[in-house]
Amino acid sequence: METIGFIGTGHLGYPIAENLVRAGYKVKIYNRTREKALPLEQLGAVLVDTAAAAAEKGGVVLSLVADDAALEAISTDALLEVLGPGGIHVSMSTVSPDTSTALSLRHQAQGVQFVTAPVFARPDAAAAKLGNAVISGPAAAKERIKPLLLAGFAKNIFDLGEDAGSANVLKLIGNFMIAASIELMAEAFALAEKNKVDPKVAYEMLTTTLFAGPVFRNYGAMVIDRKFTGSPSFGAALGLKDMDLVLQTARRSYTPMPMAQLVQSRLTTILAKDVHDADWTSLAMGALDDAGLTY
Amino acid sequence: METIGFIGTGHLGYPIAENLVRAGYKVKIYNRTREKALPLEQLGAVLVDTAAAAAEKGGVVLSLVADDAALEAISTDALLEVLGPGGIHVSMSTVSPDTSTALSLRHQAQGVQFVTAPVFARPDAAAAKLGNAVISGPAAAKERIKPLLLAGFAKNIFDLGEDAGSANVLKLIGNFMIAASIELMAEAFALAEKNKVDPKVAYEMLTTTLFAGPVFRNYGAMVIDRKFTGSPSFGAALGLKDMDLVLQTARRSYTPMPMAQLVQSRLTTILAKDVHDADWTSLAMGALDDAGLTY
Repeated sequence: METIGFIGTGHLGYPIAENLVRAGYKVKIYNRTREKALPLEQLGAVLVDTAAAAAEKGGVVLSLVADDAALEAISTDALLEVLGPGGIHVSMSTVSPDTSTALSLRHQAQGVQFVTAPVFARPDAAAAKLGNAVISGPAAAKERIKPLLLAGFAKNIFDLGEDAGSANVLKLIGNFMIAASIELMAEAFALAEKNKVDPKVAYEMLTTTLFAGPVFRNYGAMVIDRKFTGSPSFGAALGLKDMDLVLQTARRSYTPMPMAQLVQSRLTTILAKDVHDADWTSLAMGALDDAGLTY
Repeated sequence: METIGFIGTGHLGYPIAENLVRAGYKVKIYNRTREKALPLEQLGAVLVDTAAAAAEKGGVVLSLVADDAALEAISTDALLEVLGPGGIHVSMSTVSPDTSTALSLRHQAQGVQFVTAPVFARPDAAAAKLGNAVISGPAAAKERIKPLLLAGFAKNIFDLGEDAGSANVLKLIGNFMIAASIELMAEAFALAEKNKVDPKVAYEMLTTTLFAGPVFRNYGAMVIDRKFTGSPSFGAALGLKDMDLVLQTARRSYTPMPMAQLVQSRLTTILAKDVHDADWTSLAMGALDDAGLTY
């Protein structure tokens, strides 16, 4: 089976890399903190010490790192040189569309194709291959890497066309909608609680009818159960980074988004108060705290 | 079959009254504008000229009117006197929980039981009996009127307990969540459009996966298709009234709700601009207009 490279085995990258190893791919893994990838070596992966060392001439490298700077840092000239013509870099990180556009041009200059494929899935959903992929980039490259996305985390793949940044735009829109839904439920359930309506009953009624669907159902349960901290699978700092990207994209395209500003502000408060081990669901603490409720 | 009274055959009351008539109930109907109820007379309903005339001693009267003032206006001493001990008034209007609490006490003083049963359904869903009912009030009275709700509009009934205002609180929470979801989608789809991502593709991806569920699916389609005016089944003025009630309830219970303030402001703009035949989905025009998009 094909040898592929995988860069970034964080909370989300790890289960995806593991799925690929278990699917039978020969996976060369680079992670900044080598220790975190060690268990994957036991499963048969090969750990390497640089991004470039994860690549093969004309091969595929998938990367999933924390932010724009990290993506730029691993997209070295050495990596592009090894991949070379026919090689593909699949960028799964949630970054700015502008970063993807710029990186796509740099890759093209070396004959490497750049596919943007951000991940809609929390780590457990990725592990179960129940995630959703949105992809954009050159058509032939997308076709070649689709099996990797399906083997790695995706139940569904949505094609956004050729433009490198398009998949990032949709990923940012999705994350904005999730964050705004968390705030919306926090306000709604606070109103219930302050008016002697059991928020659990409100949650059950609303998320089995009008608001059926995974985001309201799953994040709603976290809001109801006050599951804001502990072992974050998507931390508040990452959530804030994403809302920064949403507002940066909105600012550049002249799109006022007052709800995005509100959730950015909520997440900023979580960072300001240095809430320990905060999941991004902790943004719900703002509305609860404002209403004098404990959590 | 039982004779029942029905007060208020507006956009939503009409199909419910029609369902009850067709189900075989003998329905006495009072509507402020008698003409609007005339077709129901053809189906076998009896039109009467006062709220009290719709009632029978010890019987059930259902009412569905526009606002708190209208509900108070039809809850006449004469109506309560006719209903008398054993009689039930089922209040389906979206009104303040405080109004329900006060009315419940007034009814009790005459031996009449007051059940709050607001309707989650647009008129077409009510006609198809696919709506959701939330009910609160005295237990025995609720049991007696459940068949009427099922015959009239409801697929599911959720019981919120004994307190008259509780069902109103949940109804207001639900309407707030719908309005906030419309704003959220308007901002999200505006960002898509301003960044060369087809909003239809974003809508399809998001509402078949993360945001599956009727509100995002159905209202999302209205936002995407710019279906904001024409033949409103739930007008902007009614939506604004509901957001006023949400914020009034929030204010009284000390629950700051910035998202509710935002959607109230959006609907206020629709009224300020005197948008003709505006559905409450027209609140989405605010985010689109702010972003310089046409609609």
